Amino acid sequence: MLTTTDLTVEKINSLLKTAEEFAQGNTLKAADEIYVSNLFFEDSTRTKTSFDIAQRRLGLNVVPFDVTSSSVNKGESLYDTVRTLESLGINLAVIRHGKDKYYEELKDVKLALINGGDGSGNHPTQTILDLMTIHQEFGKFKGLKVGIVGDVKHSRVANSNAEALRKMGAKVYFSGPEKWFDEGTIINGTYLPIDDLVKEVDVLMLLRIQHERHGEKMKISLESYHKKFGLTLDREKAMKKEAIIMHPAPINRGVEIADELVESVRSRIFKQMENGVYARMAILKEALEEKGFKFK
Amino acid sequence: MLTTTDLTVEKINSLLKTAEEFAQGNTLKAADEIYVSNLFFEDSTRTKTSFDIAQRRLGLNVVPFDVTSSSVNKGESLYDTVRTLESLGINLAVIRHGKDKYYEELKDVKLALINGGDGSGNHPTQTILDLMTIHQEFGKFKGLKVGIVGDVKHSRVANSNAEALRKMGAKVYFSGPEKWFDEGTIINGTYLPIDDLVKEVDVLMLLRIQHERHGEKMKISLESYHKKFGLTLDREKAMKKEAIIMHPAPINRGVEIADELVESVRSRIFKQMENGVYARMAILKEALEEKGFKFK
Amino acid sequence: MLTTTDLTVEKINSLLKTAEEFAQGNTLKAADEIYVSNLFFEDSTRTKTSFDIAQRRLGLNVVPFDVTSSSVNKGESLYDTVRTLESLGINLAVIRHGKDKYYEELKDVKLALINGGDGSGNHPTQTILDLMTIHQEFGKFKGLKVGIVGDVKHSRVANSNAEALRKMGAKVYFSGPEKWFDEGTIINGTYLPIDDLVKEVDVLMLLRIQHERHGEKMKISLESYHKKFGLTLDREKAMKKEAIIMHPAPINRGVEIADELVESVRSRIFKQMENGVYARMAILKEALEEKGFKFK
Repeated sequence: MLTTTDLTVEKINSLLKTAEEFAQGNTLKAADEIYVSNLFFEDSTRTKTSFDIAQRRLGLNVVPFDVTSSSVNKGESLYDTVRTLESLGINLAVIRHGKDKYYEELKDVKLALINGGDGSGNHPTQTILDLMTIHQEFGKFKGLKVGIVGDVKHSRVANSNAEALRKMGAKVYFSGPEKWFDEGTIINGTYLPIDDLVKEVDVLMLLRIQHERHGEKMKISLESYHKKFGLTLDREKAMKKEAIIMHPAPINRGVEIADELVESVRSRIFKQMENGVYARMAILKEALEEKGFKFK
Repeated sequence: MLTTTDLTVEKINSLLKTAEEFAQGNTLKAADEIYVSNLFFEDSTRTKTSFDIAQRRLGLNVVPFDVTSSSVNKGESLYDTVRTLESLGINLAVIRHGKDKYYEELKDVKLALINGGDGSGNHPTQTILDLMTIHQEFGKFKGLKVGIVGDVKHSRVANSNAEALRKMGAKVYFSGPEKWFDEGTIINGTYLPIDDLVKEVDVLMLLRIQHERHGEKMKISLESYHKKFGLTLDREKAMKKEAIIMHPAPINRGVEIADELVESVRSRIFKQMENGVYARMAILKEALEEKGFKFK
Repeated sequence: MLTTTDLTVEKINSLLKTAEEFAQGNTLKAADEIYVSNLFFEDSTRTKTSFDIAQRRLGLNVVPFDVTSSSVNKGESLYDTVRTLESLGINLAVIRHGKDKYYEELKDVKLALINGGDGSGNHPTQTILDLMTIHQEFGKFKGLKVGIVGDVKHSRVANSNAEALRKMGAKVYFSGPEKWFDEGTIINGTYLPIDDLVKEVDVLMLLRIQHERHGEKMKISLESYHKKFGLTLDREKAMKKEAIIMHPAPINRGVEIADELVESVRSRIFKQMENGVYARMAILKEALEEKGFKFK
């Protein structure tokens, strides 16, 4: 599973069903001796650990791969690194890489590949866990209104989720600093000012302000961002009765969202993380079954 | 287990008993599928590896957590990191952190927590392994004289051990450069010049000179420290017949202790490391049983 | 197993036999609970991961050891680090270290040691996997002509392989920039110009140009190296019909070897990696059996 485009409606429904069964306590273990490795060329706690735990729950052998001490430092290409792991007997690799569509140079490898995030492109496993969290809440996607707030253009979460949500029948709205919405950004939704958007949506997805990336670009302070575009205590009060709050984390408390709202009744932020393990178990199982491995 | 103050006399006795059973070959495995993670925000070989091996011996699933590639680099708080691991299904976390009492911000998390060392504060698992080593030797604490030599003020080992030893009935003496013993340092013992102390004690605990931390403060050279305050070959000869030498390691050979004495007959330094695994197995078992997990 | 000199003809034959059985699908698991750790003080993907997978295939418990967060940073000696791991219950350590013959300071430790590469010295496990790959192809060593091309003087692969190949009855030739062949380098073989060597040999072993190490020394550009001493498309055409190409990797594509030849019919480069796991399983098994552990 490499791109959000790979996620057809049938595929999404099938993964959500399997993931929900894991959430309900279903356990499955690999019938074969399967070796997997997680190659994270960008920092991550949640996604990497989530995959790691999902893999152990399925009885897979997780072989550590430390980017900082790998031969990538000696200039080895991603293709040669992955071909090497394949030759050593790794059956599946999860890869996160800063380069958009890094997976295009890997089309000749034979092991199973799962995209753990590429540049500003795709993040399909985050999409599945986000859809799962929404589906647990509302039991449907059709007719739901989902608002995504932040740097939509540079966010692989935003891009992946908006595309999948539209496919499933939801209506997507965006908000955030207008200058972040250049021509061409708004493909899968409609821009709304934040104060209108919070009143309109059933699901409010906040994106992380990647202040370590923005540098010059972000000319407003974090406090100012919070007041102008963040989920303040006042804006939360304007939300619909049943509406929920989501965030892919890590959170900048007091920036995208008021500190007090992170663990409030509407928040599904830690629930998303919990669902992430089940969603990834489903994704791993399907990817390995496609390669002929069995579970019992 | 977070502070030495948590270690009541009954708790200590119970942990020593369980640890000694593990040392005698008793084996126990988790009856449940338990996931644990070791968060070491400060460098460590001994403590981290010791926990890792203790966890594997108990049949726990050890999920790696690499501080350098974690979202802590994106400014995530310790609380959010630990809540994340909890949401992902981690049942117990061991944490070492440079900040005194870091655990105070974690009082709302639900997973089991073990303190692997906080700033200049506590190091309760080191205390249990040190007490275990002393108890193996003398079969008691009451009436024993224990000397602790070095930078007592900044050492979490010294602080934790002195408090627990007094509680168990031992008498504690300190030595080292006098300027390291400001007012208020000597709470749990009495200062003695090093040449008097070595003749007096049953247990001589040497602390590591943390020369990478002291910088300016330490105005004497390492050679000079050895002559003035270290365990030289001559001072070792002045020790009582049955007295033993301990050190939490890593050792600066030729500074706190003469090179030749590190593996001498009196030394229990490597025995301490061996006991560390059994002590931590006992601590892990109790912490998990308190959360309702079972072993068999 | 520490040096290539430890590899007697009988030992080599026995390891090749066991390794080939693993390659044919034989599986063995440790009958005891065995703990192992891989200490890599130099970057590595292939060797470290290869050992890690071999260890898991044999049912060993692999305890992570991260050099960058270890007490080595506090100045601990290699001896004290290894003695510590031994005290903690590690039964076998694989060590790669930049210092020639680092293992000489470890002669008093009791755990099993395997040399994963020392400085410009030995790399005995690479030798076994290389011999295995040659033996799979030709069924013998006697009479075979093997060419090794590159910085033979500083390559532990070249040194280890040349010594072992001669011992097994093969004839060894060297090539590469003449200034890299000072007096004394050519102990186990004969120098031939590259265009003569490619026509002569059954096995062509290319060494990696360690351009990150050479700095000043290497006064020719990488393109120029390829033309003068690399395996170009033209030189490949001059090779004998059955001759094979080997490389310990990581490869500098377009330097030691033309990009198009890396996965060509003659290339055994990825086969070497695959064999590396089986060779290391055989080596681990023998080393542990020598310490009294059993497999079933």
